[in-house]
Amino acid sequence: MTQKIEQPALRIRIVFGEIGMIGPGKAELLELIAHCGSIAAAGREMNMSYKRAWELIGTMNAMFRDPVVDSTRGGPGGGGAVLTEAGRQVLTLCRSFEAQSAQAGAAQLDSLQALLRDQPKP
Amino acid sequence: MTQKIEQPALRIRIVFGEIGMIGPGKAELLELIAHCGSIAAAGREMNMSYKRAWELIGTMNAMFRDPVVDSTRGGPGGGGAVLTEAGRQVLTLCRSFEAQSAQAGAAQLDSLQALLRDQPKP
Repeated sequence: MTQKIEQPALRIRIVFGEIGMIGPGKAELLELIAHCGSIAAAGREMNMSYKRAWELIGTMNAMFRDPVVDSTRGGPGGGGAVLTEAGRQVLTLCRSFEAQSAQAGAAQLDSLQALLRDQPKP
Repeated sequence: MTQKIEQPALRIRIVFGEIGMIGPGKAELLELIAHCGSIAAAGREMNMSYKRAWELIGTMNAMFRDPVVDSTRGGPGGGGAVLTEAGRQVLTLCRSFEAQSAQAGAAQLDSLQALLRDQPKP
């Protein structure tokens, strides 16, 4: 008996020429900041250093017209943080793009999956 | 005067659980092998070593039921190589998936682009 994995996952990067790109890492960071209310906590969920999380936010703030995160630096736990209106828009658009892609390309994903080698059942 | 970049580019990875993934690098390698008729030449086009190109092909051959490249190892220029029927199918499906994604998510891409910081004209 063999089985195929259930559903392929998409990891999509959108590259805006030299301005920058946004992909799964930045989108997940925004999502976790919205969920955790803290950059430090969001970074920890991703096994990412606080410094690295701040770097990614800085990159996004430089890419977009408005900042994506509103934060209170420092304090216990690294301070609180929320997504700005721009941050929420960016996150929603990324997630919506991914969903549209998966839906529009479902037939191609199925066909690719059908070409995979059968996997032994665990 | 300011301007926005013209069209965002998509870099899509399709992850088939633990079986493996296919993304822009593997798709481009298949495309260049089809175009160049040689793994060595395709690798050179991508600034990729012959060894690395072979590794990627080996990974794909292990992922899919049928080999994706039919090659004559060695000889002058590293031997000739062509895509197999499976290789052509994989490449076509990847390119088709990308095209479907871009089309289905065009509104989201436009909205994201509208949120970008204006760029000074070069």
